[in-house]
Amino acid sequence: MSFNSFGHVFRFTTWGESHGPAIGTIVDGCPPGLRLSEADIQPWLDKRRPGSSRFTSQRREADQVRILSGVFEGRTTGTPISLMIENLDQRPKDYADISAVYRPGHADYAYEAKYGLRDWRGGGRSSARETAARVAAGAVARLILPDVSIRAYVVEIGGAAIDGAAFDEAEIDSNPFFCPDTGTAARWERLIDDARKAGSSLGAIVECVATGVPAGWGAPIYAKLDSELAAAMMSINAVKGVEIGAGFAAARLRGEENADAMRAGGDHGPAFLSNHAGGVAGGISTGQPVVVRVAFKPTSSILMPVSTVDRDGNETEIGIKGRHDPCVGIRGAPVVEAMMALVLADQKLLHRAQCG
Amino acid sequence: MSFNSFGHVFRFTTWGESHGPAIGTIVDGCPPGLRLSEADIQPWLDKRRPGSSRFTSQRREADQVRILSGVFEGRTTGTPISLMIENLDQRPKDYADISAVYRPGHADYAYEAKYGLRDWRGGGRSSARETAARVAAGAVARLILPDVSIRAYVVEIGGAAIDGAAFDEAEIDSNPFFCPDTGTAARWERLIDDARKAGSSLGAIVECVATGVPAGWGAPIYAKLDSELAAAMMSINAVKGVEIGAGFAAARLRGEENADAMRAGGDHGPAFLSNHAGGVAGGISTGQPVVVRVAFKPTSSILMPVSTVDRDGNETEIGIKGRHDPCVGIRGAPVVEAMMALVLADQKLLHRAQCG
Amino acid sequence: MSFNSFGHVFRFTTWGESHGPAIGTIVDGCPPGLRLSEADIQPWLDKRRPGSSRFTSQRREADQVRILSGVFEGRTTGTPISLMIENLDQRPKDYADISAVYRPGHADYAYEAKYGLRDWRGGGRSSARETAARVAAGAVARLILPDVSIRAYVVEIGGAAIDGAAFDEAEIDSNPFFCPDTGTAARWERLIDDARKAGSSLGAIVECVATGVPAGWGAPIYAKLDSELAAAMMSINAVKGVEIGAGFAAARLRGEENADAMRAGGDHGPAFLSNHAGGVAGGISTGQPVVVRVAFKPTSSILMPVSTVDRDGNETEIGIKGRHDPCVGIRGAPVVEAMMALVLADQKLLHRAQCG
Amino acid sequence: MSFNSFGHVFRFTTWGESHGPAIGTIVDGCPPGLRLSEADIQPWLDKRRPGSSRFTSQRREADQVRILSGVFEGRTTGTPISLMIENLDQRPKDYADISAVYRPGHADYAYEAKYGLRDWRGGGRSSARETAARVAAGAVARLILPDVSIRAYVVEIGGAAIDGAAFDEAEIDSNPFFCPDTGTAARWERLIDDARKAGSSLGAIVECVATGVPAGWGAPIYAKLDSELAAAMMSINAVKGVEIGAGFAAARLRGEENADAMRAGGDHGPAFLSNHAGGVAGGISTGQPVVVRVAFKPTSSILMPVSTVDRDGNETEIGIKGRHDPCVGIRGAPVVEAMMALVLADQKLLHRAQCG
Repeated sequence: MSFNSFGHVFRFTTWGESHGPAIGTIVDGCPPGLRLSEADIQPWLDKRRPGSSRFTSQRREADQVRILSGVFEGRTTGTPISLMIENLDQRPKDYADISAVYRPGHADYAYEAKYGLRDWRGGGRSSARETAARVAAGAVARLILPDVSIRAYVVEIGGAAIDGAAFDEAEIDSNPFFCPDTGTAARWERLIDDARKAGSSLGAIVECVATGVPAGWGAPIYAKLDSELAAAMMSINAVKGVEIGAGFAAARLRGEENADAMRAGGDHGPAFLSNHAGGVAGGISTGQPVVVRVAFKPTSSILMPVSTVDRDGNETEIGIKGRHDPCVGIRGAPVVEAMMALVLADQKLLHRAQCG
Repeated sequence: MSFNSFGHVFRFTTWGESHGPAIGTIVDGCPPGLRLSEADIQPWLDKRRPGSSRFTSQRREADQVRILSGVFEGRTTGTPISLMIENLDQRPKDYADISAVYRPGHADYAYEAKYGLRDWRGGGRSSARETAARVAAGAVARLILPDVSIRAYVVEIGGAAIDGAAFDEAEIDSNPFFCPDTGTAARWERLIDDARKAGSSLGAIVECVATGVPAGWGAPIYAKLDSELAAAMMSINAVKGVEIGAGFAAARLRGEENADAMRAGGDHGPAFLSNHAGGVAGGISTGQPVVVRVAFKPTSSILMPVSTVDRDGNETEIGIKGRHDPCVGIRGAPVVEAMMALVLADQKLLHRAQCG
Repeated sequence: MSFNSFGHVFRFTTWGESHGPAIGTIVDGCPPGLRLSEADIQPWLDKRRPGSSRFTSQRREADQVRILSGVFEGRTTGTPISLMIENLDQRPKDYADISAVYRPGHADYAYEAKYGLRDWRGGGRSSARETAARVAAGAVARLILPDVSIRAYVVEIGGAAIDGAAFDEAEIDSNPFFCPDTGTAARWERLIDDARKAGSSLGAIVECVATGVPAGWGAPIYAKLDSELAAAMMSINAVKGVEIGAGFAAARLRGEENADAMRAGGDHGPAFLSNHAGGVAGGISTGQPVVVRVAFKPTSSILMPVSTVDRDGNETEIGIKGRHDPCVGIRGAPVVEAMMALVLADQKLLHRAQCG
Repeated sequence: MSFNSFGHVFRFTTWGESHGPAIGTIVDGCPPGLRLSEADIQPWLDKRRPGSSRFTSQRREADQVRILSGVFEGRTTGTPISLMIENLDQRPKDYADISAVYRPGHADYAYEAKYGLRDWRGGGRSSARETAARVAAGAVARLILPDVSIRAYVVEIGGAAIDGAAFDEAEIDSNPFFCPDTGTAARWERLIDDARKAGSSLGAIVECVATGVPAGWGAPIYAKLDSELAAAMMSINAVKGVEIGAGFAAARLRGEENADAMRAGGDHGPAFLSNHAGGVAGGISTGQPVVVRVAFKPTSSILMPVSTVDRDGNETEIGIKGRHDPCVGIRGAPVVEAMMALVLADQKLLHRAQCG
């Protein structure tokens, strides 16, 4: 119910603003006895960290996480795990001159309409910096899912999709785009460079697959696995669409094409001949890979000037200088992965609660 | 947190199986003093009711709703509103011969993997019949939104999209498809008839627009208006994708194309020159129309036989006779409308809680 | 979060007014595969039923429960269990003449101050009739606790306490007061008769003991087992106080007296030499019996006239005729038992969620 | 639902262990635009701070609070407020020699039974140190209640009650016991000194009164104002009992004695002639002062040896040296006040959500 919390029995709460002293998360409901240190969390944060290539924001943040509670002698105690990341490269002054102007595509106007005031330093709470806290929480969630493998990657940037035939999971971490196809990665490099130089930005589509999820996780009717995933993904900054399995394409298939026929011989149940369902039926996992696709809009902060108004209603134009990702969807991939882990960990525990 | 409840301060819980004695919903947190009688709810149920044309299931249900609590002398009292709809046209016997077979595309296998047993009478709890309870609850939600207009309609069936230029809201209720374009409605009629005769089924895309939502509803970070809408829509049976505003298409736009530029002169804020955001920025409404698009897969129950297995792992084929919608997305439109109303009512009250 | 729901993963929602057509509850999160029929619920309702002796309200209600969902072929399916009890002996007219007067000790004025209107038929939603729904839900909760024995009994009426030395559990169901001591039961009979004839009423204290609760249920900090019990008990009509273990008396003990010393030799842990803690330490069960005591105020509806005002602020006097319990705490015992079961079932599942 | 969170729309989450690096709280749902700085919180923490007299623990903690988020230019922004207090005077070594022994009256055994391990440094999460976070959150809650006055004071220590006739609110802060009666304060001084010297400890009863609460806050049935208060108070360390208004004494009154008769002439409703109800009827405030009484057991950490067992089941004796409050109830008073504020703030916002 809390505005800044997510999850039911495995639940995390995040706090912090882009240019405040720190951001953080409290992870509650974690099973006890799991080995956990900062070293288990840091690698995931490093994947999301800005400044690692010219294709991401040039903000320099070490994003060093600190465990403040919930771990004793290297193991989780079952009590809340407080994780904190200090903001080091704050430059609130960068924003002073736009403090009274509404940046199109940003939450500036909406926040001010809601709250009557807003922290204009880099978007304050609405900044994508909040997602670092999710990634940290996600690292804890992964401890609960030793048999589940979760992989997110970018499948499309600026309308240019990967070549499915060239998919190679091993490539995902070998380029700055989380791209599973080297040929496409090279194309994206040019596309993004062009957009960046033009003062523009690009959108992206991220796909995430979780394998090893047993049949039976999820719950009717309003805690469906896919409903939870949709909420989780849509809560990420810049996300405008979520699909499960065949998604929107399913609406163009005929019943017999979309049906995932079953044969005998599966390891723990039927052998499915296809996975249009994306691993979820009736809100419950089927044992097939859980597949989600997430659409990120192009970064709203662009150098190219856009018409807008200020707080007093005066018309003006705004081009955002500062340090921004030319394609926010790229760094979205580790966040999508984290949200997948967070949903699955919660659903695993919920399932255990009801069904033992 | 409850598996069968939705909402925070305006919250509803549904219960009931497709072929049990009745289904129903408890609406909790409704403001007091609102005029409410069965006559306020029935018209919305009638829109969703099966058996109204050859393009929907031939199950004959009056879907008469009864108010069992929470209303006194014609007005809501602020206490829980219990709404019940009896199931009249139950035919559990229709399902006896498939009680041990997993219908592809249905939740049969997933439910059994989770619970160890399932009510196989028409899908039991996983049946789309549950959505009647949502529509009833949605009618109550509308009372809280006198200044909001909500309209859902089908924009695509079997891959055939409406002609945007021919959009006419007045047409939506004049054809059996909730189609805002008469020319396309005629095409759909043929498509669906063909599919039905072939023992197949079609998918659909439903769009829903809410106008009159003031700027400021919604909340960061995990109760975002769009996140709640995504959860709400994805929880509807057969839904595989949700988009807000430009949705997946936004991922193919450049930053300057996707930006919703602002000018002076709006009624209650800026005049936006476009609405790629779909009325939501940073999880908070902008005052523009809230726009959601929802993808429904083709009905899983088809006459055409599909390979499957039974509970004992034996391979078999199954073609579903019974009474089924050839395109379940059509009757999804009133359900999408209801979920939009339910989310908005809750967010209105949540906003009032925090911001007065 | 919902106003009319209780519990986390095992959760129930109640609805209905004293003189509406029916009352009921939805039990959500129940594990699947448990044997359940109306016959499992009815005996508990019968214990709470009015009209069974001259010491309770003369309202004649069969309190026949009906299972409307969530059970298939005699077993729970894991989906919401809808239970309904029709109100048969409604006499709303009894209340018409006091519809504009605030009954002292009742919620009349408070409800009207909150909601602007109220259902004045027997207190509407604020009637103790709502507790029948809790008892029905509690019967389901008991299925989850096969190894836990829960027993509530009255230990004091009108200031007359039982004689602990004469405690005999077998006597509890053999008198109309749930009194574990026959001598005291005889005294109470006279006390209550006297109060009833005088047009007055008496308060009572109910004690409830749950044995067989293993060590480890409950959770820090705000879902503590004792915190949940306190909330559960205080939510019962007419309850004004809750104690765990030694309770208020603990405040008068010295540290060494209150300490529950431990020795070796317990079945599943230490052998405690006393149980001042009432089976809960740090919010978590210790394996000892869980002991709660609950104070019920005297019934507010009394024949003896009391000064009050009407809706228009005019001073008047009111004496309640109608049908009322001379000591509402007596029928509170089965409700306290039900709430104990509901809390423990939820905590058992919560514990399983986190700790496996 | 979260184990370490409390509240519905105004919600706080606490984290941290007694001897970890820090403790803290996230306050979520706070209305925007309220003036808030550390200086608004610190005075309340100072009241609860240990080491201020010989009647409290000698642990030296500055308990300096730091606001890490949610406040911008001196005002709340509506986003989560992160408050952190560093632990300065940690002495985990004090506890090393008892790390394998279960301290009677403490949560040692229960935690270990639940989680399989425990942070034995000063009780870890189960330490009363956690209540500092509540006090900090309570200071924020007070901002939402400008018209409500909340006062908690100790009314009984070691069985010695205050003299009601000598009650003087102005005295509460003039002695180290939060005692409203100087004569009794002097007696308590001797009682506590004696207990301390004897290596023993004393229990206490704290009363808390909130005036200025308008009629109408609270909600049936399971979010009743008194039910929420009971949960809030029982969640405080060492609390074993909670009463509202006349509480357990109400069980000994007759109906006509307990009735709070009404006359015309109240400022905003009836003038009540008494307040046995403690300001709550049917779970909703009546406009009278809200009165709660809370029983604290004697401090479990005492020098006097008590029989116990160690982790391996060996019998031993334990006397706790370290730094402990001889009467933990004294410092409980500011915590009770904070919890009252936290419940009322949440209920105020909940009421506004539903009833406008």
